[in-house]
Amino acid sequence: MNITTTKPFPVFVVLYNTVSEPFFNKVTILGVGLIGASCALALKSRGLCKTILGFGRKETNLIQAKEQGIIDEYSLEAADSCKNADLVILSAPAGSFKKLLYSVRDALKKNSLVTDVGSVKGPLVPALEAMMPEGVHYIGSHPIAGSDSSGIANASADLFYGTRCLVTPTSRSDEKAIRKIISLWESFGSNVEIMDPMMHDEIYAAASHLPHLLAYALVNTVADTNAAYLQYAGSGFKDTTRIALSSPELWRDIVLLNRENLVALIESLECNLEMVASLIKNADAEGLEREFSKAQLFRSTIK
Amino acid sequence: MNITTTKPFPVFVVLYNTVSEPFFNKVTILGVGLIGASCALALKSRGLCKTILGFGRKETNLIQAKEQGIIDEYSLEAADSCKNADLVILSAPAGSFKKLLYSVRDALKKNSLVTDVGSVKGPLVPALEAMMPEGVHYIGSHPIAGSDSSGIANASADLFYGTRCLVTPTSRSDEKAIRKIISLWESFGSNVEIMDPMMHDEIYAAASHLPHLLAYALVNTVADTNAAYLQYAGSGFKDTTRIALSSPELWRDIVLLNRENLVALIESLECNLEMVASLIKNADAEGLEREFSKAQLFRSTIK
Repeated sequence: MNITTTKPFPVFVVLYNTVSEPFFNKVTILGVGLIGASCALALKSRGLCKTILGFGRKETNLIQAKEQGIIDEYSLEAADSCKNADLVILSAPAGSFKKLLYSVRDALKKNSLVTDVGSVKGPLVPALEAMMPEGVHYIGSHPIAGSDSSGIANASADLFYGTRCLVTPTSRSDEKAIRKIISLWESFGSNVEIMDPMMHDEIYAAASHLPHLLAYALVNTVADTNAAYLQYAGSGFKDTTRIALSSPELWRDIVLLNRENLVALIESLECNLEMVASLIKNADAEGLEREFSKAQLFRSTIK
Repeated sequence: MNITTTKPFPVFVVLYNTVSEPFFNKVTILGVGLIGASCALALKSRGLCKTILGFGRKETNLIQAKEQGIIDEYSLEAADSCKNADLVILSAPAGSFKKLLYSVRDALKKNSLVTDVGSVKGPLVPALEAMMPEGVHYIGSHPIAGSDSSGIANASADLFYGTRCLVTPTSRSDEKAIRKIISLWESFGSNVEIMDPMMHDEIYAAASHLPHLLAYALVNTVADTNAAYLQYAGSGFKDTTRIALSSPELWRDIVLLNRENLVALIESLECNLEMVASLIKNADAEGLEREFSKAQLFRSTIK
């Protein structure tokens, strides 16, 4: 068997020539969780901004973030927090982006930049882009960092170092703004790739969203069978379901925003499981070994 | 939600009073792979036997094992290798156990012990037990060790240290033999539990076999969608599918030997996925968050 791409793969992976390191006077982080706080720490540690203001729903979290030097100030009022910001980073759960942006758009400064760190891009990017006031530029980002851990306790200035970051401009995007956002992530140590927002969602439905759904489904299936069996889980079960520890709120939003790709993939997976079940019922040893060998080979190609 | 056992849990977990450390003159390892070789190293490092003879299909592997001091001698003839052995360990793929035992049974020494390290017990234990000649005792074992790695290169004298080992006697088992097998695994540092063979298979279908099937199925589903998407796999996908690197031959056998439990579990999982798909189609945010939170909570109970 050759490992080949069975469908044309239209993603274009181009690294733009980036400008020199970006410098921002004021940065506002809308949502100070693992990713938002890590952005703040990465900006500060690299001297890329003067002040960072955090906005969030929980004041205790914001107080902690300020005490730990992650942010300089905080506000419980989103629009207020964005005043005079040169860069606004949307790092709340993706389902809140539209409402959040709607509430702050009138406060956005001319020539400022807005980006987000959401795991879904397809329907969101054009929607957010369309909401921008004249002269304010939105460019979508998706840093492939973070894990099942969450919150500022796990934040780090080097969370993005050596990881992939997708930047998803559209045909309407301002080129200077694209360059600045690429430069920002490269300053954090990310390997930036440019990707079409719709293609992004198709790829990440398979590479990330489906595995999350499956980890949740596997835990619930075993728990519904007999919760006591979970105590016999070895390293295989633990690895396979580690991402079931991820934030339910975050993943609820991601799943709903990437609904069509995911429903199609769940159907494909069910077809595959049906086929495997029928191989098992027919005691088709050769067929099973062929399926498992195929998966082993493909899995071994992942670096 | 309380985490409770929803069904009665009839497993009896009893630690027998074990005898002092077992000592064997000659041990035969039928199948010198990761587990067989680690048994050999564990026996040698603890001074539990005089000589170890290995049997296998590939002479190059046996030569290597001898050169590395894992075994003292080897044979390419199974019956021959078992002559005068005080302990015979079946550590080939589980699907070969019956045939292998059939070929060596006439060579087994009176009062010798036979155990296996297979991941399936229900249908195998009574079958192997029934094949024993008069005065030879078979007791099933299942050390929860090893991983996606395989082969003697990954073998270690401490592979079993601190891990669980299920020992699965029947009502016909000789008590002295049970004690000796328990003592053997405890010498290796395992935490031994006694378990009914049928219950063993029900538990491990859920805690281990289903996750393996699922890891293979997930990789194949993504590969069939577009193999190039695999290169976008992050740590979540990698963890979820790590066990898809496991030996196809080994897992083909395990799956077929635990067929009924697995077919029932695949059906349960499909029901769960159908339910999730319908929550997604109905954009039921609350329902999705409830499902994910339930899984997160149950997953967090696994130590």
